[in-house]
Amino acid sequence: MQRVALLAHDQFPHFAKTAVGLLRYGLFDVQAVIDRGNAGKRVRELLPGVQDAPIFASMSDAPEVDALVIGIANPGGGFADEWRDDVRTALRRGTDIIAGLHDFLQDDEEFAALAVEHGATLHDVRKPPRGLSVSKGRARDVKANVVLTVGTDCAVGKMTVSLELARAAQERGESAAFIPTGQTGIMIAGWGYPIDAIVSDFVAGAMEEMILEKGNDHDWLFVEGQGSIVHPAYSAVTCGILHGTMPDALVLCHEEGRKVSKGFDDFLLPAAHEYIKLYEDLARPLHPTTVAAGALNTSKIADEDEARAAIDRYAETLGVPATDPVRFGPEAILDALA
Amino acid sequence: MQRVALLAHDQFPHFAKTAVGLLRYGLFDVQAVIDRGNAGKRVRELLPGVQDAPIFASMSDAPEVDALVIGIANPGGGFADEWRDDVRTALRRGTDIIAGLHDFLQDDEEFAALAVEHGATLHDVRKPPRGLSVSKGRARDVKANVVLTVGTDCAVGKMTVSLELARAAQERGESAAFIPTGQTGIMIAGWGYPIDAIVSDFVAGAMEEMILEKGNDHDWLFVEGQGSIVHPAYSAVTCGILHGTMPDALVLCHEEGRKVSKGFDDFLLPAAHEYIKLYEDLARPLHPTTVAAGALNTSKIADEDEARAAIDRYAETLGVPATDPVRFGPEAILDALA
Repeated sequence: MQRVALLAHDQFPHFAKTAVGLLRYGLFDVQAVIDRGNAGKRVRELLPGVQDAPIFASMSDAPEVDALVIGIANPGGGFADEWRDDVRTALRRGTDIIAGLHDFLQDDEEFAALAVEHGATLHDVRKPPRGLSVSKGRARDVKANVVLTVGTDCAVGKMTVSLELARAAQERGESAAFIPTGQTGIMIAGWGYPIDAIVSDFVAGAMEEMILEKGNDHDWLFVEGQGSIVHPAYSAVTCGILHGTMPDALVLCHEEGRKVSKGFDDFLLPAAHEYIKLYEDLARPLHPTTVAAGALNTSKIADEDEARAAIDRYAETLGVPATDPVRFGPEAILDALA
Repeated sequence: MQRVALLAHDQFPHFAKTAVGLLRYGLFDVQAVIDRGNAGKRVRELLPGVQDAPIFASMSDAPEVDALVIGIANPGGGFADEWRDDVRTALRRGTDIIAGLHDFLQDDEEFAALAVEHGATLHDVRKPPRGLSVSKGRARDVKANVVLTVGTDCAVGKMTVSLELARAAQERGESAAFIPTGQTGIMIAGWGYPIDAIVSDFVAGAMEEMILEKGNDHDWLFVEGQGSIVHPAYSAVTCGILHGTMPDALVLCHEEGRKVSKGFDDFLLPAAHEYIKLYEDLARPLHPTTVAAGALNTSKIADEDEARAAIDRYAETLGVPATDPVRFGPEAILDALA
């Protein structure tokens, strides 16, 4: 297992989606989290139920690892210059860097030179491969039951729900695969296309390619959705995933208490049940599908009874079964899909 | 005015969208069309009402020009090897090449070498610029009335309708701009982002940038739409344009007789009026808009009375005024928008 450090300055845990995803599901052995704001603490003090690791103020303090992972995904995917020192330190030790940014580390002259000098590798997992093309509209033909997680907004838990469902289905003895579409999902699964970094003409085609590759030798595919169909910035990604995937069922993911689009305070989210119509109406002309279950992220509610009450309200609003699969397990959703 | 030849082998006129667009609206002086299937004829014999030019079998037969334009846009945007001889001939004469393909001519080693050797330039208008980013959701704030053409499918006439409306508004003395989003529109207008070649995360942001650039010093913006919101391959582009543009009104474009998605025979188009709901529902949470008029492409109907009857049926189905702006002028649409 590859030993890694996770860079997550000032964002850990709640805004460091990549770091948290890797701590919860990744195949990495996490030796360190780099977060100057929490130096001296351990992961388990801040985030229970995931792999534990010590937290350090900088890469200079961290133990020897095989790779430093950029564990923060900024809106826009830019590289923040305040991370430069840690990346530099890692490269000088010959440590690889793994990043999922729109700004490619390989294009950074200093990093490219340091990597060559010290025999380290720069992995840009959001760099789309060549050879992609337009969809042929064939994803609906695969044998598998294809389940897509869709959201009321970005960062509500779509990747997490997809991973939980795939794992639970496998534990039931089903042949199930997780289909990654974002940088964290790709780091966890070790393959996949970074859909939001693919040119818009080829988004549906890239999804189709992944569905065709896995869809005929699995009974279930759990596809990681992105953004929301009415997100001010990312709806193109969401729409291309929906139509390229041609799912048989949708799971609508929401975060309890989210009223406006994250980072876009002027944009009120529609009521949860309105999303059902938006997603189903848009999918219908290509391949009819239904929202079969809801997933509610209750991580900001401390009290368990309150969380259960919020889930009950959510299920009632949607008219389908719902749960928080991280807190209470994904069984209720899996049952609704069966 | 730049003298050009338009490459359009075996696709002219009906499938050579770029060539026809440039003949109808371009600021180029078209000296030749290259189409082996129609060599010896003239453009006006095949396509009335546009700039005339002689048709030649190959670039070797064509007169001296400043640039050869690839006038065909294949699905997928690939370079067809059967065009290679004509491009080679042009470059050996020192003639520039203008292309709007996803495959960039600048990446072709033979063409790059010939261009250097003979002092010619390779213009890849579909190459997206660097420095794009995510939308901030601000397009709805501009002063202009923003009108977006949307479609029931690709290749129904959205660019043409937008250009006709911008020109007619200008003739009425209004301050109106055309906002190009595709390779042909960009060649006609001389600026613009090739939206379908931009990474999906930045599609809305690129639209927003264009709207903000032109929207506060014009009364009207006529935005070239792309694809369709339920197109099996291109809906990501369409959705990102809709949400990045935040239009005040939509014009729904359709081609009379089109029953299935072009090139996707297994995908029946929904009824025209169903598109109204799909577009309006999807736009509403960010910036409410309505389909204010319809544009019907009747170019395949020879008889004028039949064309008028088809338009009447289309207007009745939609419940808004409609016309074929190329055949009968765009006045009816412009009046409906006022």
